[in-house]
Amino acid sequence: MTDTTAPLLSRLSLNQETVRQWSLPELADGCARAGLRGVGLWRAPVRAYGVAAAARLVRDAGLAVTSLCRGGFFTAEDPGERQAALADNRAAIDEAAALGTATLVLVSGGLPPGSRDLPGARERVADALAELAPYATERGVRLALEPLHPMYAADRCVVSTLAQALDLAERFPADRVGVVVDTYHLWWDDTVGSQLARAGATDTATGAAGPSSRIAAFQLADWVTPLPAGVLLGRGQLGDGAVDLRWFRERVDAAGYRGPIEVEIFNPSLWSRDGTEVLAEVVARFLRHVR
Amino acid sequence: MTDTTAPLLSRLSLNQETVRQWSLPELADGCARAGLRGVGLWRAPVRAYGVAAAARLVRDAGLAVTSLCRGGFFTAEDPGERQAALADNRAAIDEAAALGTATLVLVSGGLPPGSRDLPGARERVADALAELAPYATERGVRLALEPLHPMYAADRCVVSTLAQALDLAERFPADRVGVVVDTYHLWWDDTVGSQLARAGATDTATGAAGPSSRIAAFQLADWVTPLPAGVLLGRGQLGDGAVDLRWFRERVDAAGYRGPIEVEIFNPSLWSRDGTEVLAEVVARFLRHVR
Repeated sequence: MTDTTAPLLSRLSLNQETVRQWSLPELADGCARAGLRGVGLWRAPVRAYGVAAAARLVRDAGLAVTSLCRGGFFTAEDPGERQAALADNRAAIDEAAALGTATLVLVSGGLPPGSRDLPGARERVADALAELAPYATERGVRLALEPLHPMYAADRCVVSTLAQALDLAERFPADRVGVVVDTYHLWWDDTVGSQLARAGATDTATGAAGPSSRIAAFQLADWVTPLPAGVLLGRGQLGDGAVDLRWFRERVDAAGYRGPIEVEIFNPSLWSRDGTEVLAEVVARFLRHVR
Repeated sequence: MTDTTAPLLSRLSLNQETVRQWSLPELADGCARAGLRGVGLWRAPVRAYGVAAAARLVRDAGLAVTSLCRGGFFTAEDPGERQAALADNRAAIDEAAALGTATLVLVSGGLPPGSRDLPGARERVADALAELAPYATERGVRLALEPLHPMYAADRCVVSTLAQALDLAERFPADRVGVVVDTYHLWWDDTVGSQLARAGATDTATGAAGPSSRIAAFQLADWVTPLPAGVLLGRGQLGDGAVDLRWFRERVDAAGYRGPIEVEIFNPSLWSRDGTEVLAEVVARFLRHVR
């Protein structure tokens, strides 16, 4: 690592779903050996390992937890389901706090079965954020609302663009609710540059205290085709696809974001390889396509 | 058919890809027997049958050709490829004129191989429209630019939203270049209602002569999940999915569009059935979910 690569590389974080083949101890060890300073974790493997034990493991490896994925799924109409979702999100906030991360990624949820009411579902997301934000703030956790690609609007996430995510987040102080910028979900949108500028301008406009940007997390994956059935596991290694990753990084920088840059690639072809080799490739691609 | 269903039903048109199992003679016969007044055709089967013969066949069955799919694929950087694309589009315009339809549907094309320059590709689409519009107008054909779902942005269509399509179309008079509103591509977008209003307001604003709306074609399909590999052939029968079809029809009406309403569903499960049965189902679903 040369002096010129160090500043940005020190922000690189590996989301654990990129190397699903690794156990949590392998992840902590592998990332520490590669010189990384952070990892993004998922709730299911963390809970299976034990939240306190996972927190200790990662801390002892000298790594920060850059985000916890994920809470959300707020769109149920049934009051019982809704209360269950809110309870589960409070648990996710507690887990984030225990892991020492300030960032809980939220995927809003899709349309309830049989529903065609997108505006109604989006309003229930806003209601859930209002209910959860104080609880999160008390525990030092910021809610990070993630817009997902429009191909997930029906069954996974009714928040499809950065503009929509900002519309929702701006109902709250910037230090309570932010947005996730994931290149895989947003790259196609001709308004994303102006929306990134909007995300950076938020606090300047309101004069509020808190983080200098609405951007709570920045995640990288490339867009490759053809998409697989179900369209969940077809993300591309950095540089393999259509996304101008450097353009995004520069715009996110310009929006005042100074936090971790997570690489989150869901792809079975990466999971079938040696994790150390995958991570080395991620670092090399990051230096080539993002720096 | 009752008196109250007739006015809207008279606008129903069947796009031939919905019943790919039918030959052109079967399509003309089947649509005429079902009381339809229009069909949407595709270039490949029309050329295989013979353009003049296809025009005669459809006319003799008492049907109008409501659109021809499709021209486009304008994004090549190589000058030779670009000239070939323009020549092919002039042929498509000639075919549309020969079929007696005023509407040629255009799919812009994706990113050239290895390119990540979305703005550049979009500008080449505008350049191609400028080259083709006079040729089309002389032959009584209107170019109908179709925004495709963002999941096709890399490999098929860099125009992903109605706003983008209108941005491009509005560089030209409304009677030369319009847009296609297809529910499958646009349903997820929280700005589509305001963009449909914009499409209707165009001529009022400019005072130009010509059609009363930028909307050149209105196509219906529903959104169902999970998506199949390649995401091309997973469109849903009307009423089976997440799209509020009536909401769209009302907004398109309010935008001043009075033309055909085409049902265009690419789905092998429809192609494996009897075409007459599929068409009867389309009519019944149209009356239930669109009227």
